[in-house]
Amino acid sequence: MDPPQVQTLSHFSMSATQQAMSSNINLQEIHDFLCDIAHKAGEIIITARPATSRTGSKANSAELVTETDKAIENILNEKLRERYPDFKFMGEETYQPGDTLTPAPTFIVDPIDGTTNFVHAYPYACISLGFTVDMEPVVGVVFNPFTDQLFTGIKGQGSYLTSPFHKREKLPLRDLEPFDDLSKCLVITEWGTERSGHNYDVKVNTFRKLCADKKDGGAMVQSIRSLGSGALNFCSVAAGSVDLYWEGGNYAWDVCAGWVILKEAGGEVVDANPGGWQPKVDGRRYLAVRGGDGWEMIVKEFWGCVEGELQIGD
Amino acid sequence: MDPPQVQTLSHFSMSATQQAMSSNINLQEIHDFLCDIAHKAGEIIITARPATSRTGSKANSAELVTETDKAIENILNEKLRERYPDFKFMGEETYQPGDTLTPAPTFIVDPIDGTTNFVHAYPYACISLGFTVDMEPVVGVVFNPFTDQLFTGIKGQGSYLTSPFHKREKLPLRDLEPFDDLSKCLVITEWGTERSGHNYDVKVNTFRKLCADKKDGGAMVQSIRSLGSGALNFCSVAAGSVDLYWEGGNYAWDVCAGWVILKEAGGEVVDANPGGWQPKVDGRRYLAVRGGDGWEMIVKEFWGCVEGELQIGD
Repeated sequence: MDPPQVQTLSHFSMSATQQAMSSNINLQEIHDFLCDIAHKAGEIIITARPATSRTGSKANSAELVTETDKAIENILNEKLRERYPDFKFMGEETYQPGDTLTPAPTFIVDPIDGTTNFVHAYPYACISLGFTVDMEPVVGVVFNPFTDQLFTGIKGQGSYLTSPFHKREKLPLRDLEPFDDLSKCLVITEWGTERSGHNYDVKVNTFRKLCADKKDGGAMVQSIRSLGSGALNFCSVAAGSVDLYWEGGNYAWDVCAGWVILKEAGGEVVDANPGGWQPKVDGRRYLAVRGGDGWEMIVKEFWGCVEGELQIGD
Repeated sequence: MDPPQVQTLSHFSMSATQQAMSSNINLQEIHDFLCDIAHKAGEIIITARPATSRTGSKANSAELVTETDKAIENILNEKLRERYPDFKFMGEETYQPGDTLTPAPTFIVDPIDGTTNFVHAYPYACISLGFTVDMEPVVGVVFNPFTDQLFTGIKGQGSYLTSPFHKREKLPLRDLEPFDDLSKCLVITEWGTERSGHNYDVKVNTFRKLCADKKDGGAMVQSIRSLGSGALNFCSVAAGSVDLYWEGGNYAWDVCAGWVILKEAGGEVVDANPGGWQPKVDGRRYLAVRGGDGWEMIVKEFWGCVEGELQIGD
């Protein structure tokens, strides 16, 4: 693959054929199809790692993830690629370094988001299925089979949570109070897998500053949560129960579906590094913020706590 | 109050009257009674902070917590103190600095554990009801009304999870694999409310070391989670989906109920500071570890990552 060519492609406008294709796309139909696939994938996830398991045989963690990923990939291949053969695909399984998102209609999928939780049978993991047109997420489906929570969004049509406790409830689940300052905010950050060098320093120093007492120059956020699934984190911000989620290191398939769910719930996505108001879906640095008056102000206050710049993405 | 006297009291053996009282205590009856109260309290929590709320009126966060605490305290007063007038009480509402746990039969209760989550309607909060005899937790009931999860334990009789997904399932929910090293472990730590000075330094430096790459002298734990409820954290370790939970700063009412639930699931509790194999329920420093061969080894490896000593408790 020729990286410069791919780079150029990603900045092309859509071709006449692609534009014609896009204008005929039935987003509701794609949404319904993705929901169906999500439930099928959920069964595979639950079967592979039941919440209750006293069987003697245990695959090791790596095998468990690989096998389950593969089983869900098979469904995606059989169902999704067969039904929409002209659309592009982007996902962990097929990704090659240098691949970038293009304006063409593209499915961006993660068979299991929250792999570590999945391996431990910690019930905060999901399948995340997104769809972009012109590099913008327009359909998102996130399903946690352990809790039977289904988050969905379609551009221009709102986003919803369906669960044993919510019968297709519109997001956000609450009135969104205006922002005051970070000390009233519940924030998600994640430790990630890169645990050395510059980016690890930026992360840990930023976590420290976010939480630290104001008298030491900190933001004294109400608290920090680390939960282990980027897609579900976006959905928690969309629901309005978490105020901000700061992330450096995720890929497009971790955030694409959650992105449209959040935007349709009135939220916004900006860059994890200060000053980036126009983040890219495959930019790998994200700051998700719930809707509410004063969100730009809270983003600027948050950026003031970022200790250095994440050298990741772009 | 005279601290030395209180200190001495907490190390007394039980009086003859207390011993007679203890031997006649029906733990099953107390368990059933606490479950009933937990469900009633759950209704109050859900009513105060519904998962879905589009009402115009909003109490501020502090008022919301105070009012809900008070409403649940009223139930505890009416029901529990009336039924068991001879037993002692320990809880956030009645606690005075210097109070220590005595050998007398004692209810140790927290009307809402996970207050920040509760305020944000983040569905990870609970009522936590524990009961000790001779300073040992012997009954524990933890109920999360947002997810309808009820964790219970009685000394010598096992611990259980009842939820929409588990019909009174014995804990742990999984076969407990032998421990290997921390790099295979999912760990919970919490940022707490003390965000300055020595203890904050110990915490942040310990988090950093736990996560850091082994080439930098870290433990490279599989990941760290921060969830915001001590009682539910103990229950997650009891379930076997989290391997360890390190805490400095919680009070007896945050851990008492979870403690017996964890112990009955085969887990252990030691001190958050290195070397403390015999932690006290009101010692404010805890390292909870799931059951499984090699748990002492993993505790020692964990203690090797604690950067300094927490100057809290005792």
